[in-house]
Amino acid sequence: MSLPKEFHEIAERVNNWGRWGADDEIGTLNLITDEVVREAAATVRAGRRVPLALPLRQDGVQTGMIPGRVNPLHTMVQINQELFGPGTVATSDDAVTMGLQAATHWDALTHVSHSGRIWNGRPADSITAHEGARFSGIETVRTLVSRGVLLDVARAKGVERLPGDHAVTPEDLAEAEEFGGVRVGPGDIVLVRTGQVRAYLLGDRHAYAHPSPGLSVRTPEWFHARDTAAVANDTLTFEIFPPEIENLWLPVHALDLVEMGMLQGQNWNLEELSTACAEERRYAFLLSATPEPFVGGTGTPVAPVAVL
Amino acid sequence: MSLPKEFHEIAERVNNWGRWGADDEIGTLNLITDEVVREAAATVRAGRRVPLALPLRQDGVQTGMIPGRVNPLHTMVQINQELFGPGTVATSDDAVTMGLQAATHWDALTHVSHSGRIWNGRPADSITAHEGARFSGIETVRTLVSRGVLLDVARAKGVERLPGDHAVTPEDLAEAEEFGGVRVGPGDIVLVRTGQVRAYLLGDRHAYAHPSPGLSVRTPEWFHARDTAAVANDTLTFEIFPPEIENLWLPVHALDLVEMGMLQGQNWNLEELSTACAEERRYAFLLSATPEPFVGGTGTPVAPVAVL
Amino acid sequence: MSLPKEFHEIAERVNNWGRWGADDEIGTLNLITDEVVREAAATVRAGRRVPLALPLRQDGVQTGMIPGRVNPLHTMVQINQELFGPGTVATSDDAVTMGLQAATHWDALTHVSHSGRIWNGRPADSITAHEGARFSGIETVRTLVSRGVLLDVARAKGVERLPGDHAVTPEDLAEAEEFGGVRVGPGDIVLVRTGQVRAYLLGDRHAYAHPSPGLSVRTPEWFHARDTAAVANDTLTFEIFPPEIENLWLPVHALDLVEMGMLQGQNWNLEELSTACAEERRYAFLLSATPEPFVGGTGTPVAPVAVL
Amino acid sequence: MSLPKEFHEIAERVNNWGRWGADDEIGTLNLITDEVVREAAATVRAGRRVPLALPLRQDGVQTGMIPGRVNPLHTMVQINQELFGPGTVATSDDAVTMGLQAATHWDALTHVSHSGRIWNGRPADSITAHEGARFSGIETVRTLVSRGVLLDVARAKGVERLPGDHAVTPEDLAEAEEFGGVRVGPGDIVLVRTGQVRAYLLGDRHAYAHPSPGLSVRTPEWFHARDTAAVANDTLTFEIFPPEIENLWLPVHALDLVEMGMLQGQNWNLEELSTACAEERRYAFLLSATPEPFVGGTGTPVAPVAVL
Repeated sequence: MSLPKEFHEIAERVNNWGRWGADDEIGTLNLITDEVVREAAATVRAGRRVPLALPLRQDGVQTGMIPGRVNPLHTMVQINQELFGPGTVATSDDAVTMGLQAATHWDALTHVSHSGRIWNGRPADSITAHEGARFSGIETVRTLVSRGVLLDVARAKGVERLPGDHAVTPEDLAEAEEFGGVRVGPGDIVLVRTGQVRAYLLGDRHAYAHPSPGLSVRTPEWFHARDTAAVANDTLTFEIFPPEIENLWLPVHALDLVEMGMLQGQNWNLEELSTACAEERRYAFLLSATPEPFVGGTGTPVAPVAVL
Repeated sequence: MSLPKEFHEIAERVNNWGRWGADDEIGTLNLITDEVVREAAATVRAGRRVPLALPLRQDGVQTGMIPGRVNPLHTMVQINQELFGPGTVATSDDAVTMGLQAATHWDALTHVSHSGRIWNGRPADSITAHEGARFSGIETVRTLVSRGVLLDVARAKGVERLPGDHAVTPEDLAEAEEFGGVRVGPGDIVLVRTGQVRAYLLGDRHAYAHPSPGLSVRTPEWFHARDTAAVANDTLTFEIFPPEIENLWLPVHALDLVEMGMLQGQNWNLEELSTACAEERRYAFLLSATPEPFVGGTGTPVAPVAVL
Repeated sequence: MSLPKEFHEIAERVNNWGRWGADDEIGTLNLITDEVVREAAATVRAGRRVPLALPLRQDGVQTGMIPGRVNPLHTMVQINQELFGPGTVATSDDAVTMGLQAATHWDALTHVSHSGRIWNGRPADSITAHEGARFSGIETVRTLVSRGVLLDVARAKGVERLPGDHAVTPEDLAEAEEFGGVRVGPGDIVLVRTGQVRAYLLGDRHAYAHPSPGLSVRTPEWFHARDTAAVANDTLTFEIFPPEIENLWLPVHALDLVEMGMLQGQNWNLEELSTACAEERRYAFLLSATPEPFVGGTGTPVAPVAVL
Repeated sequence: MSLPKEFHEIAERVNNWGRWGADDEIGTLNLITDEVVREAAATVRAGRRVPLALPLRQDGVQTGMIPGRVNPLHTMVQINQELFGPGTVATSDDAVTMGLQAATHWDALTHVSHSGRIWNGRPADSITAHEGARFSGIETVRTLVSRGVLLDVARAKGVERLPGDHAVTPEDLAEAEEFGGVRVGPGDIVLVRTGQVRAYLLGDRHAYAHPSPGLSVRTPEWFHARDTAAVANDTLTFEIFPPEIENLWLPVHALDLVEMGMLQGQNWNLEELSTACAEERRYAFLLSATPEPFVGGTGTPVAPVAVL
């Protein structure tokens, strides 16, 4: 079995290998220039801050479907411990074990490979248990602050949540742009709201997992045309799941991460932001979403904030 | 043994219990108003972004001195795994175990207690292994974006790194303000640079741990007078260690966290920021430092970014 | 709410506090004398070894019902890594995170407390996040080898698996003794087979969890009369669950662990042993089931073996 | 670089590939027959039990020298938690993260590979992050009970601890046999005491790690000639470290595990056993050392017990 011709044709059109040099490890994040960031800061008018991360808890979004991707286990190693003797100041300290992609997260460019290659044509076997990702580990991102744009596909269509079999198309994205009175430009971080996270927030993580609306295999070309820096949404799988094309699993991952070198974010809670943007009547804002710099990480939890 | 009279006198002067209501869980973060955030955004001129987190790795700053606070253990659960069959897109996935305060972090207000109390007078035994911190867990912070001010004490004094026995005093802070041409105002997040993290960056985590310069027990009153929202620095212990007053351990922690309700950050790498501020000739900037929302967490890793 | 009179009456009858001195930490394990062990060794006739542990895997028996008790997460930190250079011997290394009582395990005597007390009358607050169990941590067991006796209640009754509402009574235990032609004596480790683990082995961990047959609140007196050293069975909860007496949760735990000081084991796979004992026509054997010596552990995984 | 001719010559002499069939996963453990176990049980005379595991604690033997092999981190998830309401029986529960080979452990046969092969000639790439070891994972051992023989090399030589540069040779093993009045036979588990663990027990884990006495590259042939089932000792590295032959790293591992298919154990505490054997004047005993059955594990903690 191998990837179909259809996939390879799109891959050729969106491929960015070498665009920022043979040594590049961060792909489309190169599009976030100082100027873009200045413009992003200039979008702040209300000073209103909206958190986009789901709380980190054992009762998180993972169902066991993805092997090894465990919900956060929060444990205590000190509780009001008077380490320096009775009557002294007491400390509490905790530890955690979790899958790096278990909760609100960024995929690193190395999260997927195909045909033995990762971003920029590097060999997939540069990822090892010893080092994790030797190239394009999540720590290479350093900072991730830019203009954020919410494409509220669900609200534009007047629904709370897209159906589980809805593949978000370029037409849907354009519709949401128009609805929001905003245009995605170079270096933007695009947040695509499907409303799917409502299933989890209402207590049903299995319904959240799948079937799930998500990005269509046709969207990478749209983001490529716009020179988008990164895309995140409010689903577990990012792309529609089960997939649009039978037996073509994770094509959007492969196109975005491997071919374009564009970061993807999942499990973002865009509900409060949807309300805020509607109230403020603005769909562009400053977005701060710097990854935790796990060296060699193929993904990472993130606590993104939109500032309107 | 109990805390000395001297401590209790300062505590009385800086105490904020009830200031934002009996139910408040976030203390001085209430001082970050929308207006402060708008002003923070307005400080962005260059669009230059500076990361302030140390890389997360097993070879991190922890030496074993603080029991249970382990450096990040990064492990792999999938490496280029063709989960959907041979020739399909392959995924890599990782997991981590770490102390929540092992690396660049925020203390939650619940990180320390004294005399059986935590912030806002709540009982210390509201922290349990079952739930972690029932009140003032780190997830209650929601967002943390404000104006950041670098008080570059080391650079103001013309040294790379303060001596290990240097307690940073209010006079030092004022000197750094003057050096930077900046004045700390209500709702600011203050970053105090001692240069101590250079020891770790040069490869000696033991020298980094202690003896360590850090904040004097006299500084909480200064921050209280300025209505500072949060303070972070580039040391393992935040306050001078060993302490200024014999057998008075962690007094600054107790004053900042329990009495004032002011977040503290440790192990922040302020070296690159020091250079950037000197080059830009500005010591105020937009600071984005939202905690990872571990429910019940008494601390959390953070990946802060300054935008100049 | 407090424990009912009925509970306290039984507690009084089975209480062993002080029986082996005020400093004792291991309770009825004191009954395993050298002589008992010699007799245990003498039971070995066939040389046949039967493992009693369930495999340790992420797909283990835990369902999430017991907070924090997570199935083993097995991760890799090295895979065929040529640490000493290309062409050298390569090593693989793994790490695990798990609840100590997640799989086939022993409860330590400290696993439960009631009325503020643990085994031998010590204060329950001697268990801390800092140290775990200061007294009667699982490491104090040192070794656990004795005569094992299988009371195959299910087989004695001619069923594969007892119904979920079946409380195993002293009469059931006596019936199984008679069936096996064996009599439980001082220092024995008694294995009580209900067949409940078949639910898990057949793929349904939820059916395994509950409703579950298990030991009746009347059994501690029977084990007390026989001077049993330890008891294990093939259920998640050890005792019948939900409980026999409304709102009296975990009474057997409290009687066995706190009052008698008798170790309990859960999630033991007794299926192969059931077959072996039937084939060998012997229900007594050498049992080796030494806990992993986690210092301060309130429980521990164990890999028990019966030698017939 | 590749392994020297000398290595390959020994490898050829000790190779057991195919000896127990092409599908075999447990190697020399096949030598532990029912008869050997019956004889092992017959060695029990005193009923004296000696634990051989080091306590599992954060302050364990690992120094950070072996990447990813972390000492046990013991954490609490419940402490005297009245899960069923106030006044009910309270439970305590703990969790652990550790390297599977961090403490007293068995290497699985898959712990090392060379020239792309593991035990029985299987491909080394059958070990993945997804499954761990697909073949010869530690769970395939099922049980490990046999006759144990202590070869107390240190005591035979009249020293407490062998020097750090002492390679234990076949001649040393024969000398210890004679000293103990015992002869190693087929299916035995041999424990080789160097006294090196005393360094750790006295508080110096770095001195324990290396330089360390250990088995010579000449010993595999001796064990092969004796049809030994498994070998364990009281060092971190099992074989002498640094190695006897420059740039030939871990040759004993490769010969024992890959070529012979013989389990190795490390970090066993043989001090108390040394005393017991000397007192009992017997160096053969029943040894019970069944691995924790981590599915796919390339090693595992073990709590071995000798019964004399």
